[in-house]
Amino acid sequence: MSEEGKSYRSTSIGALQAIQRETLHDALALTGTEISVNQLAPGACPPFIHSHKQNEEVYIFVKGRGVFQVDGEEFEVAEGSVVRVDPAGKRCVKAAADEALSYICVQASAGSLAQFTMTDGVIHEGKPAWK
Amino acid sequence: MSEEGKSYRSTSIGALQAIQRETLHDALALTGTEISVNQLAPGACPPFIHSHKQNEEVYIFVKGRGVFQVDGEEFEVAEGSVVRVDPAGKRCVKAAADEALSYICVQASAGSLAQFTMTDGVIHEGKPAWK
Repeated sequence: MSEEGKSYRSTSIGALQAIQRETLHDALALTGTEISVNQLAPGACPPFIHSHKQNEEVYIFVKGRGVFQVDGEEFEVAEGSVVRVDPAGKRCVKAAADEALSYICVQASAGSLAQFTMTDGVIHEGKPAWK
Repeated sequence: MSEEGKSYRSTSIGALQAIQRETLHDALALTGTEISVNQLAPGACPPFIHSHKQNEEVYIFVKGRGVFQVDGEEFEVAEGSVVRVDPAGKRCVKAAADEALSYICVQASAGSLAQFTMTDGVIHEGKPAWK
């Protein structure tokens, strides 16, 4: 199921909401992000609060419900919640007592994105030749 | 459903597989990535091939099946497929004829990640005080 070419690498990690923990940096040879897919069991949370030195994090919640905490402020999260946390934010997340919580976490160096989409993309002439 | 503090911003975009297109850069005031959630209707593909000037892209497939193309090489993707494409890769993606294809796309400046997780994270003493 893995494919690799001069400008890409592809693999499969299975259905996101079934993953306990997978990290993509090494699997895909990433250079701009680390991306992890995570699941907390019902009622579970990591045993510590953490911040980052350089990296901004984005959490994308895929399934379940829980509570997120940044610098002591709490708010609810559920499937479809998306959260940005700056490097200095002291953060933790906890699954609801009766439901597992699945999420994607994207780390990238804060302030590193210079341009994107319309200003970074280059459109090439010709339609894709689908086999 | 939106929350904001000194070091974070949170909002809700709803169930990922139901989203036609949502972009997070402006919604969350991101500085290290642009993240979009996208859906292609059965048989659909963007009408062009594109590459990037600076940004590495990671595609995370959330639901459905389809075909991915980089520099004319094709491979199948489905729920659970993850793909890295370097800036120069000329890419396109197409949904299967009988099924919509949902995916997250993460753009980040290629080569911008200096450190991550264990080397970028800082563990703080004390357990989270969950209310």
